[in-house]
Amino acid sequence: MPRTTGPPGVSVSSKLLAVLGCFDVHRPTLTLTEIARQVDLPVSTARRLILELTEWGGLERLPDGRYRVGMRLWEIGSSAPQQRDLRDAARPFMQDLYEATKENVQLIVLDGLEALCVEKIYGTRAVPTETNVGGRMPLHATGAGKAILAFSPRQLLVDLIDAGLARCTPYTLVEPGRLAAALKKTRETGLAYSQEEKTYGVVSVSSPILDTDKQPLGAVAIVARLGAPIDRLGPAVRTAVLSISRIIR
Amino acid sequence: MPRTTGPPGVSVSSKLLAVLGCFDVHRPTLTLTEIARQVDLPVSTARRLILELTEWGGLERLPDGRYRVGMRLWEIGSSAPQQRDLRDAARPFMQDLYEATKENVQLIVLDGLEALCVEKIYGTRAVPTETNVGGRMPLHATGAGKAILAFSPRQLLVDLIDAGLARCTPYTLVEPGRLAAALKKTRETGLAYSQEEKTYGVVSVSSPILDTDKQPLGAVAIVARLGAPIDRLGPAVRTAVLSISRIIR
Repeated sequence: MPRTTGPPGVSVSSKLLAVLGCFDVHRPTLTLTEIARQVDLPVSTARRLILELTEWGGLERLPDGRYRVGMRLWEIGSSAPQQRDLRDAARPFMQDLYEATKENVQLIVLDGLEALCVEKIYGTRAVPTETNVGGRMPLHATGAGKAILAFSPRQLLVDLIDAGLARCTPYTLVEPGRLAAALKKTRETGLAYSQEEKTYGVVSVSSPILDTDKQPLGAVAIVARLGAPIDRLGPAVRTAVLSISRIIR
Repeated sequence: MPRTTGPPGVSVSSKLLAVLGCFDVHRPTLTLTEIARQVDLPVSTARRLILELTEWGGLERLPDGRYRVGMRLWEIGSSAPQQRDLRDAARPFMQDLYEATKENVQLIVLDGLEALCVEKIYGTRAVPTETNVGGRMPLHATGAGKAILAFSPRQLLVDLIDAGLARCTPYTLVEPGRLAAALKKTRETGLAYSQEEKTYGVVSVSSPILDTDKQPLGAVAIVARLGAPIDRLGPAVRTAVLSISRIIR
């Protein structure tokens, strides 16, 4: 590879990254026009950047002309060690939790003001859920989000309330006082619940994975159909996160 | 974002991608110097590219000064749909296979001349294995690799032999004739084995997931400690991949 001599080119590489940033779990395939519009670039420039990303293996072109993230980028992303350590520690216990309950088991971390699903275990018998690995959820409307929120610095709650608590269903806790009361209870019990607060017919129970400073590294949640005995599943979730916390430390 | 007016800047963005390409599962954290050396760039240039990638969220700087892949890149990589479809279809059946056997269950795809692990299920009772999600393995020395190889166009075997069959252990099939004979048997039975051919003390049994044209989309493997009854586990693996193949079609 030639040594650099030209201008810094920050602008070109920022455009390249902006193209990559168009893709996520909710927009897994995009057309050239969609990408160009989203990054506000002429189609000719977008085409050139996409071509370079495609040659490198970061994007792939589908027969219908759409683009998707390529194997190479998936592989590089998979190496993210901050995820790996937590996932590697959590996975076997999540596995046991699934076996004991046959329900969806998710590993959630905080990212910005949202909950991000980094691992999920489910079998042929669990109810299908909306959230996949790489998917995001509102903190205040999910069991895992509330488990993380309850043990995070208070500023996170303040920022979240400032940003506005979206109403996902009529059961979502959108009044700051009710949310704060639920978080207080979670700090006492180590367990957080969502009773159809994000999705109709879906309930969850979650507990945080805490580091030695009692700060949350993430949370494990069981997500089940309304009617599942989540009160009874709470202790199982709690047991799993305590084991994970011990391994992580 | 400003409209492009300057030079194409292919060189700058290719350097940026080269920096990203330094990271993989085997090299999850790198120093500035290591990155500069690997992409053959002056440290100052590498520093600038790394800074830009860090600001974007593609890399993260650790307290000790090393760099690792950031959450944002992990998230974009997670959206790769070619992996998602296969993984989503395979996961529940891999889960059942784990439950029935309590052994490591892996989902492997072909990438270039190597086998790439894209999903893995293991519990607290399974033997620890070397290969994690995002990890690569030689095709000729693993059950999954041989399962894929057996059902791939013959040119793949030719290319692999041309590239040289590495000897991982004294049991690795490095003679083309013996490998071809094993693949012939796999085509007859739908099952491929590795008897300590990659790692001492580790055995595996695998079967390919075939599309409607009988081309392999990937393979599911059970990886177990030497002494595990992999002959008896074969039919379970075969059952799982037939179910996955049916779903995928």
